[in-house]
Amino acid sequence: MRGKNSCRILLLLILFMRIPVIELKSQEEDTKAFFIKSVFEVALENQMSYRWLYHLSENIGGRIAGSPQSFKAIDFTHTVLDTLQSDTVWNQACEVNYWYRGSKESVKIIGSEIKGKKILNVLCLGGSGATTKKGTVAEIIEVQSLEEIKERATEIKGKIVFCNRKWNNRNLRTFHSYGEAVDQRVFGPNEASKYGAVACIVRSMTGRMDDNPHTGVTIFNDGIAKIPALAVSTNDADYLSQLLKKSKIKLQIKTHCEDRGIVNSFSVIGEIKGSEKPDEIILVGGHLDSWDVGGGAHDDGAGCVQSIEVFYLLKKLNYKPRRTIRCVLFMNEENGLSGGKTYAKVSKDKKEFHYAAIESDAGGFTPKGLTYDVDTSTLTRYSKFFEGWNSLLTPYDIKISKGGSGADIGPLKEQKGILFGLSPDSQRYFDFHHTEVDRITAVHPRELALGSAAMTSLVYLLDQTP
Amino acid sequence: MRGKNSCRILLLLILFMRIPVIELKSQEEDTKAFFIKSVFEVALENQMSYRWLYHLSENIGGRIAGSPQSFKAIDFTHTVLDTLQSDTVWNQACEVNYWYRGSKESVKIIGSEIKGKKILNVLCLGGSGATTKKGTVAEIIEVQSLEEIKERATEIKGKIVFCNRKWNNRNLRTFHSYGEAVDQRVFGPNEASKYGAVACIVRSMTGRMDDNPHTGVTIFNDGIAKIPALAVSTNDADYLSQLLKKSKIKLQIKTHCEDRGIVNSFSVIGEIKGSEKPDEIILVGGHLDSWDVGGGAHDDGAGCVQSIEVFYLLKKLNYKPRRTIRCVLFMNEENGLSGGKTYAKVSKDKKEFHYAAIESDAGGFTPKGLTYDVDTSTLTRYSKFFEGWNSLLTPYDIKISKGGSGADIGPLKEQKGILFGLSPDSQRYFDFHHTEVDRITAVHPRELALGSAAMTSLVYLLDQTP
Repeated sequence: MRGKNSCRILLLLILFMRIPVIELKSQEEDTKAFFIKSVFEVALENQMSYRWLYHLSENIGGRIAGSPQSFKAIDFTHTVLDTLQSDTVWNQACEVNYWYRGSKESVKIIGSEIKGKKILNVLCLGGSGATTKKGTVAEIIEVQSLEEIKERATEIKGKIVFCNRKWNNRNLRTFHSYGEAVDQRVFGPNEASKYGAVACIVRSMTGRMDDNPHTGVTIFNDGIAKIPALAVSTNDADYLSQLLKKSKIKLQIKTHCEDRGIVNSFSVIGEIKGSEKPDEIILVGGHLDSWDVGGGAHDDGAGCVQSIEVFYLLKKLNYKPRRTIRCVLFMNEENGLSGGKTYAKVSKDKKEFHYAAIESDAGGFTPKGLTYDVDTSTLTRYSKFFEGWNSLLTPYDIKISKGGSGADIGPLKEQKGILFGLSPDSQRYFDFHHTEVDRITAVHPRELALGSAAMTSLVYLLDQTP
Repeated sequence: MRGKNSCRILLLLILFMRIPVIELKSQEEDTKAFFIKSVFEVALENQMSYRWLYHLSENIGGRIAGSPQSFKAIDFTHTVLDTLQSDTVWNQACEVNYWYRGSKESVKIIGSEIKGKKILNVLCLGGSGATTKKGTVAEIIEVQSLEEIKERATEIKGKIVFCNRKWNNRNLRTFHSYGEAVDQRVFGPNEASKYGAVACIVRSMTGRMDDNPHTGVTIFNDGIAKIPALAVSTNDADYLSQLLKKSKIKLQIKTHCEDRGIVNSFSVIGEIKGSEKPDEIILVGGHLDSWDVGGGAHDDGAGCVQSIEVFYLLKKLNYKPRRTIRCVLFMNEENGLSGGKTYAKVSKDKKEFHYAAIESDAGGFTPKGLTYDVDTSTLTRYSKFFEGWNSLLTPYDIKISKGGSGADIGPLKEQKGILFGLSPDSQRYFDFHHTEVDRITAVHPRELALGSAAMTSLVYLLDQTP
């Protein structure tokens, strides 16, 4: 009998209580769905981020940390965040090491026996040393890996090392291929220098066969000579490799790079103060510096203007955040991470808590998802929301899943908030990454806006959590 | 007691039978997952479709049905399907109506009071009539809809109607915006002619503001005069609309189009005969004709080379299909659908059964899914597989869902097989659709290859069903 009574009570409870609860819940979901729909519609219609990116990429251009262009970018984005009526906008000081390319580098095949092309498409790597005015002339030796440099140490002294391991095109995600190949660029020149090489040239980090060399950082350890280090285009890397199969080859390399030392620079920060929980910060960001060639449109002008657009969209839709929302445009991600490190240090000193941080630094292409990077202990605080968020974001082809976040926000991990990275379609990214052709023409206004909308939606959903 | 015995028997059954069943099932899934992985890897590594598309788009070029280019495209694709060692390759005759643009069309603003730009960026619509040699001169009247043409019928006689309803950029899927806007292009000129307009110009079907006019089909009903009908670029449509706000405007239009009548053309068909169920056909296809401007790279060179690449990938991976696989490159999708209609008719006469058909005709961008279009009664035969397929395709960001298939395969629906359409990212598509800039440069080899891989994977999964 007890069982039957329990059943009846349960039935009554269901009849009189569960329905209103479901309705309330569903009303809440409807409100959220409606807000997110508005975010996407306004982003797609107004395409504000593209206009800012045009200025950043085409009028200011490549903006390596410490350069005059980087200071123009600081002024410009500061002004835009002001114009959007952020509660506060400030520049946060950070020291950067200013590497300067100098006049155009060159690599020439020498020797009259070579009948074909003589001038190669190259770009100095960031951190590269300079040659003398007359240039460096030496024989070239091709290797496939850092290990091979070590193994052939005795052959390398006085030579130019050519790191030419090919990009693996079989990976679905191009960032995996980048991860597999990039040790050659970051550590190759250091390794070559260690064994007495006079210069190092590295196959460009891309799976695309073309004439664009891709620069990027190379790191020399303390006590290792900073030799000239250059990227060569994939077409020319194959050409060189073919020539080497037939005969020995000498190159003449001229580079004019300067290490201009420490410069005082800034990250740019805008803030909308939270109305209920001002001490819990939700950060959106990208990095304001880029390489000095091209326009730094995808890397990472896109992330900066998308982060600014989050502010624009929240304001446009009259959303008053409960938590504090910060837009942080980090300086010096490309060659030092000084902005990100400084930001985390200042935040720690101030005993701040970042409830969440979202970085966009994988290009301005159609977003496919938002990936979270969080300690297992912290995960439970957030993971209970993932199902609901996914069902609200699926209509926009956005999926929340485990993955990376961003280099600049990485140091915030110790605050035990959740870190997210915007994850766009990656197929075209390494056609443009660190090249002359990373310009506004490579970015589509709708794809860019969809990224901003995805970030804004996540900020909203995070802010709506209890 | 009976209950307890049942439980024991069930337990025994589970212990001695279920485990091997699960293992078998899981082995089968592993085999499938491995095959699909290989499909994607080989497609991404070899990028064959891009090479064929280069030839189709750049060496052959725009290939409207009936044109010399369309015959070159027939010969080229026939040869490629032969080279891939299809069991049979044949051309299927179909009659097409050959519309010929003639020499470059022009639209000029006349009147010395207009100080700005005078020459507009225009393209005749397919089906447009010609002007006299001197051209047509008339006043222009702007409308927003077909209804407005009807409402303002009395004003329209002797005028040039300008259909200028804007594209809705707020839609996430650009094909929705196309659907909302395209009645102006397809039916606007006919409606204008009905009420005595002497010409019609239509805002280009795109949300992008630029100088590229977008052609496309316009349909005149029997007995309605085929007036000159042109698309104007979005920039110039806005410019014209601004001018019209200030004063009346006359245009001089010159077009030189010819209806060259019925031409015998062909769809190209390749076949790999099934080893177990040769009478069940799985079709992959796209349409071989394009508009006469640009290279027809995305529309629909992409769909053709992807369908050919399905054959390439199956052969390369030594897959021997159980069912018959057909690659059909349909003629005349753009202005008549003669290839698709003829194919379905011949198929019906031969009492064939298409177990499935997959069309790619939405651009060569990163695929997001495969959408099925099927009668409810037929659905059950296939839907039981969807969950399994989805779990195998999710790692490649491909989702099976309800949606459209393709115009060419539409007439096969009555055979009660399942129809699929490849559904790529649509954000950039209407930058290029039916324009001079739909060239190989707008296509990315990896994105194109991913579409081929998605289609090949689905063909394989369909072929593996009992």
